[in-house]
Amino acid sequence: VTREIALGPGGEFDLVRQMLAVWGETAVGVGSDCAEIAIPAGSHLVASTDSSVENVHFRRDWLSPQQIGWRAAAAALSDLSAAGAVPHAALIAINLPEAWLPQLSDLARGIGEAMRHAGAKIVGGDIARSGEMSITLTVLGHALRPLSREGSRIGDVLVVTGDLGRSAAALAALRSGSRPDSPAMDRFAHPLPRVREGQWLAGHGAHAAIDISDGLASELQHLAAAGNVRLRVDLELIPAANSISPLQALGSGEEYELLAAIPASLPLHEFTRETGTPLSAIGRVVEGEDGVELLHHGVRIAIPAGYSHF
Amino acid sequence: VTREIALGPGGEFDLVRQMLAVWGETAVGVGSDCAEIAIPAGSHLVASTDSSVENVHFRRDWLSPQQIGWRAAAAALSDLSAAGAVPHAALIAINLPEAWLPQLSDLARGIGEAMRHAGAKIVGGDIARSGEMSITLTVLGHALRPLSREGSRIGDVLVVTGDLGRSAAALAALRSGSRPDSPAMDRFAHPLPRVREGQWLAGHGAHAAIDISDGLASELQHLAAAGNVRLRVDLELIPAANSISPLQALGSGEEYELLAAIPASLPLHEFTRETGTPLSAIGRVVEGEDGVELLHHGVRIAIPAGYSHF
Repeated sequence: VTREIALGPGGEFDLVRQMLAVWGETAVGVGSDCAEIAIPAGSHLVASTDSSVENVHFRRDWLSPQQIGWRAAAAALSDLSAAGAVPHAALIAINLPEAWLPQLSDLARGIGEAMRHAGAKIVGGDIARSGEMSITLTVLGHALRPLSREGSRIGDVLVVTGDLGRSAAALAALRSGSRPDSPAMDRFAHPLPRVREGQWLAGHGAHAAIDISDGLASELQHLAAAGNVRLRVDLELIPAANSISPLQALGSGEEYELLAAIPASLPLHEFTRETGTPLSAIGRVVEGEDGVELLHHGVRIAIPAGYSHF
Repeated sequence: VTREIALGPGGEFDLVRQMLAVWGETAVGVGSDCAEIAIPAGSHLVASTDSSVENVHFRRDWLSPQQIGWRAAAAALSDLSAAGAVPHAALIAINLPEAWLPQLSDLARGIGEAMRHAGAKIVGGDIARSGEMSITLTVLGHALRPLSREGSRIGDVLVVTGDLGRSAAALAALRSGSRPDSPAMDRFAHPLPRVREGQWLAGHGAHAAIDISDGLASELQHLAAAGNVRLRVDLELIPAANSISPLQALGSGEEYELLAAIPASLPLHEFTRETGTPLSAIGRVVEGEDGVELLHHGVRIAIPAGYSHF
């Protein structure tokens, strides 16, 4: 049931009303100091916060306001996917420069579409004047058995959903002033958080998972560090997208595919049949010092550095 | 139990490690994609998001980084207080310009102290490079019966905790280049979220509550709009701080006191005995069209406009 709380006067609240009109039934109870959230009994609550900053995470000449909204929401929802959680609710803080005011409805539309796609409701937020545009989304979800980066075990198979590299290809094209091809632009502007895929992995006994936001190379290192394990990855097995080299795929950020460590007994073909998404085995959790070992036709090679904000 | 997740390499993660060192046991489980949060069975989960933006909510020449951190956290925790909730967990997103890097530890210290003071744990967050410094805090809490802005009933007494106006006095002094007196600066730089006070009100059957962030005048209008009720307030009864006029008190934002609508039967003196905080009756919920009626010695006067971001 959509429940709208009457807001007092003020330009700020006019903006909230404007977004609520765009969101329709995707927004519930917005306008109180706190959102009240009910999750199923027996489930674990998981939460994640994710910021998107103009000229750091997105550029206005590369993406429409609606795409910027979708992408910011998809990035946050992707963290819930990594936990194998059911997306439930989102709180949205927008820092908005004056010049962005005419784009607020389109921005809200993109956020709302991503939330609706994931089955989550917008339950609250904050809007503030600023010099720089940024969106911070906090998403809440629930899972019977949430996955985390920890928990990889020796003998586990490392798997990656979908394909990798289109985001980097789009970014390279945009940076050089050319137009990305349509599959590349689609991944860059409209990434799909792997909600059902994460739930399948959690439900079928995966040991650990992480989403690919900074690039597979970085996420492998996080998975190894968090699980205190050694990962051995074969470059040839990385599911690079069409016309993308495995090394490019390894360094491509903002893909929002999932990397997971799963028992060798899990049926990969069932995953694909049930979710419609390819799942590629790219390596193993092996004995030895924690870290990542990258092999090219059996020969160890250096791992490219991932993206770092600082 | 403090549980630290090992983080992979990268400057961004060095910053997270730096903050974790400051936070000590106030941080739990930071470093996974999602935080896992357990609230007591039977309790309701409430959540709120609050942004603080440099040169909008704070100025670096007016406040130390530690005070900026405390104040941002206090503002978010104040929303939980208005719900009468027990603060439980916080997710902290920081947009950080390079020039702020040397101040990160002090900023984190201020945030951590406010969380420790409120009994909440830092469970996750995000840090991103930016041109403009901002902090977005999402706080989660629980309450057996959360309060909201809705629910005021005809006959209720309107009460305000503590005193009002010191924040505006400090702001006026700082803007004119003079030094605020110590009580004013204390409220401005180190506001105390009314955590226990909100819990007392919720536990004793208050009908509605809101925290005073934009100024009492604005919050009265929100309470009236959300509850669809008419509020009658006596200017003389507003608890203005020393040397502050009631009209200044009415317009003073970022006070983080609470405004509540409570049954006339509630014992105000017990509130003060048990929480140590004054509670002032300032008016009533009356019959009539929804809105706010301000009386000065029985004569109706205009309500000053509150702060609006847009």
